[in-house]
Amino acid sequence: MQRFDFRDFESWERRYRANFFNSLGGYKSLNLLATQDEVGRNNLAPFFSVIHVGSQPPLLGMLFRPHSVPRHTLQNFRASGKATLNAVHPGILAAAHQSSATYLAEFSEFAAVGLRPKMRDFAAPFVGESRLQAALTWREEHLVQANQTIFLVAKIEAVYMDNSAVLSDGLIDHSLLESLAVNGLNSYYRPQREIRYHYAKVGHKLKTLPWQSEKS
Amino acid sequence: MQRFDFRDFESWERRYRANFFNSLGGYKSLNLLATQDEVGRNNLAPFFSVIHVGSQPPLLGMLFRPHSVPRHTLQNFRASGKATLNAVHPGILAAAHQSSATYLAEFSEFAAVGLRPKMRDFAAPFVGESRLQAALTWREEHLVQANQTIFLVAKIEAVYMDNSAVLSDGLIDHSLLESLAVNGLNSYYRPQREIRYHYAKVGHKLKTLPWQSEKS
Repeated sequence: MQRFDFRDFESWERRYRANFFNSLGGYKSLNLLATQDEVGRNNLAPFFSVIHVGSQPPLLGMLFRPHSVPRHTLQNFRASGKATLNAVHPGILAAAHQSSATYLAEFSEFAAVGLRPKMRDFAAPFVGESRLQAALTWREEHLVQANQTIFLVAKIEAVYMDNSAVLSDGLIDHSLLESLAVNGLNSYYRPQREIRYHYAKVGHKLKTLPWQSEKS
Repeated sequence: MQRFDFRDFESWERRYRANFFNSLGGYKSLNLLATQDEVGRNNLAPFFSVIHVGSQPPLLGMLFRPHSVPRHTLQNFRASGKATLNAVHPGILAAAHQSSATYLAEFSEFAAVGLRPKMRDFAAPFVGESRLQAALTWREEHLVQANQTIFLVAKIEAVYMDNSAVLSDGLIDHSLLESLAVNGLNSYYRPQREIRYHYAKVGHKLKTLPWQSEKS
């Protein structure tokens, strides 16, 4: 094992350092975040930083880097209070990656990359091709003092999904949706089922759980 | 596609709802967070909520639920200012899962689950069996108003890893470390390489990148 520390970190060029630290923590979920501006223009961008914050109320958190361009997603999310989260499967991966390019506000990433904005009764478009689409409402923001990024917390208002992907205990098995994982800024992975365990208890041997789709 | 909304969310029993919302956002990284208390007792717990916050300085964020027991990890991290992040591969998965059981402070999860605390010149133990071990320093905390969880930001001080897992552009390819991903509270996945893309540009066709291990 090698040791890497600040002497290494500072010696690396910017892109190398970004790849290293973006990938350090491990696999991330891959989602498209979609918003609409005040004149009805749709915006789309990939997001790798979604974490679970709570189940009741249902909340998730995500990080924004407001000093990198473009920041349309954050501006729109703040102004309308609405955004959608859309899981990415292999059929829309190239389009999802392309949506990270720096398009001007005048151009919708949907049209530019060939994805279909699906409107419902909500102030943000969904990605029509996505197999898990969630409607989000802005709840709060926190400014990270260490580097001026923004941790945003959103409430999950509704979820659109085929319910065959929900296992009998409530788990959304993303392998049934062929959802992808990402690491770093550009490297995509397809997770395969490994194992499920029962809740761990002190003094009890671990038991495995089946990947059971039917509601019991 | 079905629509799920607050009427469904409220009708579900607690565990079902927790599984659903823990898995909604997609795959998460699987790490063990280790700390030491003021009398030198080692603590270990699995963490699924690590996100990238920045590369210069190198920062990551993670979420704590302080009102669920046990909260030794957060107490220790605050008191000593130090913790370690340790990636999980299949050989230590059962032990990692078992460390989520509610052990009393008097008992080290390391001994209980059979993992080796590796001490370096740092006020927290590393997981000796882990293939990626990082030393973290506490930087700041933010209280999420919506549910009283805590978003903690930590600085990455040092990383211990075989450098053959670092691709030529700085990406840590977790498939070379056999790092696992997790979804929900109990379901583990093994990601397989899908594709790497170059940085996306407006008006340019996407190009793939090789999974190149040697530094060029």
